[in-house]
Amino acid sequence: MNVIDHQYMQLALQQAALGQNSATPNPSVGCVLVKNGQVVGAGFSQPAGGGVVKGAPGAHAEVMALSMAGDLARGATAYVSLEPCSHHGRTPPCADALVKAGVVRVVAALTDPNPLVAGQGLARLAAAGIEVSSGVLHAAALEHHKGFISRMVRSRPWLTVKMGASLDGRTALANGQSQWITGPAARSDVQKLRARSCAMLTGVGTVLADDPQLTVREFAVERQPLRVVLDSQLRTPPDAKLFKQAGVLIVAAQDNKLKRHILEAAGAEVLILADAQGRVDLNALLQELAVRGCNQVTVEAGGTLVGGLFQAGWVDELLLYQAPVIIGDTAKGIATLDLTDLNHKLQAKVVERRLVGDDLRLTLRFTDAGEFYAG
Amino acid sequence: MNVIDHQYMQLALQQAALGQNSATPNPSVGCVLVKNGQVVGAGFSQPAGGGVVKGAPGAHAEVMALSMAGDLARGATAYVSLEPCSHHGRTPPCADALVKAGVVRVVAALTDPNPLVAGQGLARLAAAGIEVSSGVLHAAALEHHKGFISRMVRSRPWLTVKMGASLDGRTALANGQSQWITGPAARSDVQKLRARSCAMLTGVGTVLADDPQLTVREFAVERQPLRVVLDSQLRTPPDAKLFKQAGVLIVAAQDNKLKRHILEAAGAEVLILADAQGRVDLNALLQELAVRGCNQVTVEAGGTLVGGLFQAGWVDELLLYQAPVIIGDTAKGIATLDLTDLNHKLQAKVVERRLVGDDLRLTLRFTDAGEFYAG
Repeated sequence: MNVIDHQYMQLALQQAALGQNSATPNPSVGCVLVKNGQVVGAGFSQPAGGGVVKGAPGAHAEVMALSMAGDLARGATAYVSLEPCSHHGRTPPCADALVKAGVVRVVAALTDPNPLVAGQGLARLAAAGIEVSSGVLHAAALEHHKGFISRMVRSRPWLTVKMGASLDGRTALANGQSQWITGPAARSDVQKLRARSCAMLTGVGTVLADDPQLTVREFAVERQPLRVVLDSQLRTPPDAKLFKQAGVLIVAAQDNKLKRHILEAAGAEVLILADAQGRVDLNALLQELAVRGCNQVTVEAGGTLVGGLFQAGWVDELLLYQAPVIIGDTAKGIATLDLTDLNHKLQAKVVERRLVGDDLRLTLRFTDAGEFYAG
Repeated sequence: MNVIDHQYMQLALQQAALGQNSATPNPSVGCVLVKNGQVVGAGFSQPAGGGVVKGAPGAHAEVMALSMAGDLARGATAYVSLEPCSHHGRTPPCADALVKAGVVRVVAALTDPNPLVAGQGLARLAAAGIEVSSGVLHAAALEHHKGFISRMVRSRPWLTVKMGASLDGRTALANGQSQWITGPAARSDVQKLRARSCAMLTGVGTVLADDPQLTVREFAVERQPLRVVLDSQLRTPPDAKLFKQAGVLIVAAQDNKLKRHILEAAGAEVLILADAQGRVDLNALLQELAVRGCNQVTVEAGGTLVGGLFQAGWVDELLLYQAPVIIGDTAKGIATLDLTDLNHKLQAKVVERRLVGDDLRLTLRFTDAGEFYAG
């Protein structure tokens, strides 16, 4: 691995970031083509529904970069954040396109966790006489692709919990009053998080108390996240603000035809997913979201749902916005757990601390993507 | 105000910091003497009980610096973090000593809030033909001397609450288990805070649950902080670890001769201070601590006492050590308040964020010393 490779892979990851709000269910791959020390092509995964820039719907990063480079691709090196695909999916295999274009070297940051690719893309390239390598900026690519990798390897999305709280860990008063604990800059920041998310998960308690939309409204987006409400008894009001935008999934533990029809008429899809105890089966829900192509899911909910997710070990990341205020013990907390031994506390790794307006944003990891994927 | 003055005042404040663990009840003043661009003398307030360096007991910073400079003081400029005293206290007036030594200019960071000085020190110097000015590095000096200023101006100590908590604001499990939420680096850091404190304040609940010593044990100190226990019914066990070191004040709301004699035999001083509701009168206690010369008091206690101090508006500062863990809602919190309106939340100003081991230390201010002293 040399410095030059690192620099071009950095550019490929910058390309990859351009598709992070729109590429799903595809991974948001970035590609740059370099010939004689000059970048001759660059591209990122296009949305399945159509290109952000003038690209074919669902076009892969390699195809976009090759299309920009034209004849200049012959003899070039391709830097890709993820191994090029080798199978016919919605588009023909990128490995074949790279061979056909006359690329002589392919450098990948990661091998593809998709069992349909899994090293075969690089093998196909090598078989065509192309020099291949993998692992350049591996950690950064793992970070960028963690959602897609989670879906492929764990059959569930990468789960981020977002919380706004006081210094003493309070999210709302006991009487339910909760608006504006964190400041306007934190709320804007959350809009970016929602834009990156394939789905937003909340509980019916939050819908009833706060009536959130959980959509991106401060800037234009290719697609809004699916809004998912855990609502075991179908108590979501049909006039909830969630329904202002299509794409609401209500997940209940028991069916009720009348309530279901009312919610369906309001625009919701209703799914019944009960576990053995008659509660909503969270495990089955996360699997279902993965099946639907959700790579990253963000939770904005109260302490009961968040506590349940923590206790089951499904929370990969906590984005905690801390306002510099004290609210006091009788107010509501971040996560309902029932620990009797401090050895069972949930240990996080702090990966970033950043000031957002007057609030502090802590990015805390409970899972390291490297734990479930080495490639 | 010029850059040179700032630089020498910075040195005076560095001197002042050397006495911060030992000068009380005196302010921890720093002084440097400068002549022809050279520092010819430097000193800081000596402990009343004897010097850290070879100084007379309770010698003031100016006297220490003059003593170092000797004849070189003639024609020098004196930089002092606080206005030189003009009255006969334990020592003769420093203003007179500066005049006698032939100092030609005196630059102070702050005028002295002590009503016995209050501008008279500078006036006395000016009357002797010395050029005087005040206000250089005013904010830094206010920060350094905030404890002494609080005692002089508000007749109560500067009150710092120290808390170790999880990210979700929990200090102990509901079953009382509380040890080791924060890491060893945070616990070492707290030793420095205790060393700077004139008194440590706790509640009998903490004594019964954790049996703390509240002393400085990781390094040698001139004096240990007075340990003060709020214990309305004299429930402190006579074999509590607090008594390992002399200097324990138990404050009760109602007397009980037997219990009092047992505690006195264990080495405690017992004080009865009841308010109209028959509880310990916190206001009277803070005044009493000021009368006893306590400039800075640090609270290490549970949510009930801390909440009471917050609700009464007596908390000037919160030093919050946050461990990167989640403990859950059923655990104990930082401060018992009973807010019904978020507009009454306690708004802090974050003055420092620092990583201490794996924990984050937030320094939060509820009071700005500039609010109660402009000098």
